[in-house]
Amino acid sequence: MLFKFDTYSTKVHLTNDLPAINIPNALFVCDENTKYIAEKINNSKAPYCVLKSGEENKNWDSVEKIIKSAKEAGLGRDGVLVGVGGGVIGDLTGFAASIYMRGCKLRLVATTLLAMVDASVGGKTGFDLYNIKNFAGSFYPAEDVYIPLNVLETLPEKEFKSGLAELIKTLILCGSKLNIDTASVKQADVLSRKIELAVRFKGKIVSKDFKETKNKRALLNLGHTFGHALEAAAGLGSITHGEAVIWGIVQSCYLGLTLNITPLQRAKEITGLIKSLGYDCSAPHPLAVTETFKNALFCDKKKKQGELTFIVPNKNSAQIVELKDTKILDTILKDGFTL
Amino acid sequence: MLFKFDTYSTKVHLTNDLPAINIPNALFVCDENTKYIAEKINNSKAPYCVLKSGEENKNWDSVEKIIKSAKEAGLGRDGVLVGVGGGVIGDLTGFAASIYMRGCKLRLVATTLLAMVDASVGGKTGFDLYNIKNFAGSFYPAEDVYIPLNVLETLPEKEFKSGLAELIKTLILCGSKLNIDTASVKQADVLSRKIELAVRFKGKIVSKDFKETKNKRALLNLGHTFGHALEAAAGLGSITHGEAVIWGIVQSCYLGLTLNITPLQRAKEITGLIKSLGYDCSAPHPLAVTETFKNALFCDKKKKQGELTFIVPNKNSAQIVELKDTKILDTILKDGFTL
Repeated sequence: MLFKFDTYSTKVHLTNDLPAINIPNALFVCDENTKYIAEKINNSKAPYCVLKSGEENKNWDSVEKIIKSAKEAGLGRDGVLVGVGGGVIGDLTGFAASIYMRGCKLRLVATTLLAMVDASVGGKTGFDLYNIKNFAGSFYPAEDVYIPLNVLETLPEKEFKSGLAELIKTLILCGSKLNIDTASVKQADVLSRKIELAVRFKGKIVSKDFKETKNKRALLNLGHTFGHALEAAAGLGSITHGEAVIWGIVQSCYLGLTLNITPLQRAKEITGLIKSLGYDCSAPHPLAVTETFKNALFCDKKKKQGELTFIVPNKNSAQIVELKDTKILDTILKDGFTL
Repeated sequence: MLFKFDTYSTKVHLTNDLPAINIPNALFVCDENTKYIAEKINNSKAPYCVLKSGEENKNWDSVEKIIKSAKEAGLGRDGVLVGVGGGVIGDLTGFAASIYMRGCKLRLVATTLLAMVDASVGGKTGFDLYNIKNFAGSFYPAEDVYIPLNVLETLPEKEFKSGLAELIKTLILCGSKLNIDTASVKQADVLSRKIELAVRFKGKIVSKDFKETKNKRALLNLGHTFGHALEAAAGLGSITHGEAVIWGIVQSCYLGLTLNITPLQRAKEITGLIKSLGYDCSAPHPLAVTETFKNALFCDKKKKQGELTFIVPNKNSAQIVELKDTKILDTILKDGFTL
């Protein structure tokens, strides 16, 4: 698949097996969990930068570690950073590539479902700052994104479920039938088709609105305004991105119902699917009424002229809502929502 | 003047007086020296972020300080960072704007000759890392650049001379007659015309090669490969950027003569002008043979496949030279060059 974003383009390689990457002037960036995968891919004995894993290490120190390693490896602007890992490694490597000597080359190998269906494609990079998710970052797509499906065989269940959340989000957005269940989604052919659908859908949206300025790309944030704030309130890294997004999608249904945007039947369908896939949807969430939650909510990157923006499901997809009166949120967050 | 770079455009306002900027959702970034100018411009009581001045503070800590202040000011992506200062403030503010929530709005008010003729236009942002100038950065042009000529009246002589170096560079590049002298360059009408010439020339070059990938923009680095390394060897902030660039231009003449690219007459003309304007051109430079110098030289951002690139004057402008054999540099740096 080839996508063109602004002046950039990304080639996505969806394969069953790991790629073989043979570039002399490269640096492989991975964490302690993905090092063994990077070693299988790295065919030119390029050096490694091994970061600590987890959201709690998605910070400037990790970015600087990558830049330092790239300098030590003697990379120029024509050098290639190859990020091998999930969303955290991808976002950090992408950001480092975007600022190293004002931009070097970038490839990403997605090793989690989340990175495959969401993080690796579209060029959003960044790191967390002041307990706000991706508060600093850039738009800098990889030239090549590799999605080797076989690595999912060893992906821990928790990680799988986190990625599945982004897949559910995409199914809601693209008007697809919400026809997956715990068993079918693990079948290789079903999963492969859904991943391809998610990547194609995201690529299409992003190519129309690369820098999220035209009210198109923001749709992909369904569940994320609430979700990012929950992650911040829990302490970054304490819950998975997927758990937070799923909770956010459920609250978006509640908001959409309240605003008469989400039809009741649609809300039931969405929350029904989420429940059936084993996500915890108990409400209200004790963290949603904390000050940290509220502070993080008001740092949302989509806000305009100080007003918060939410994405809420509609009949066949979702739509963007600028919330002038945020009082409505108090009820939603205090009560929580379970159909 | 309006310039279009890639998907960005920059409007340059060349005026005699300070602009009045009236934006509610802004943050003014300045240093202790330019705070009083920022206060005259800031017509909407927007908050300030006051940084420590000087090259030695062109680091991540300063960038983070800007981001933190922007967050505290409640700025969203539609918020505006207004950098008021010279090259350091402009580069730091531009970089912070490029990564704040993945990019917010940016305006620059150039208060030094250097910022006017070079730093403020063209979108190169960044900060120093590992003693290498602008080792991390981005391409992120300001939407509006203000060049209020009256601030030059109070600019210290040392700063003026630093900016004049970039002006001399531009005169060499654009094939203009090297017809300035110490007296004429300080005449308001002459200076104003030269600044406009420099801005138009740079804008034209950058609009053809925004990210320095097409061997056009790199020309603007005349004197900078040597110059940046000298700054690093001296300790960043110990000598002005202009002093270093002038020294670099002189060495580029030497390199150009050695490579039979720079005609002798041209080299004499260039070094003659430089001398007549009161720059110290004594050679050899004791710092040019240090390890720090060499290390910095090999971190130059223009290098390709590990090979260093230099810009050397030719008959009417300058040209790019990829130096396969760097032994030639040893002689040049050991001997130095004064015609």
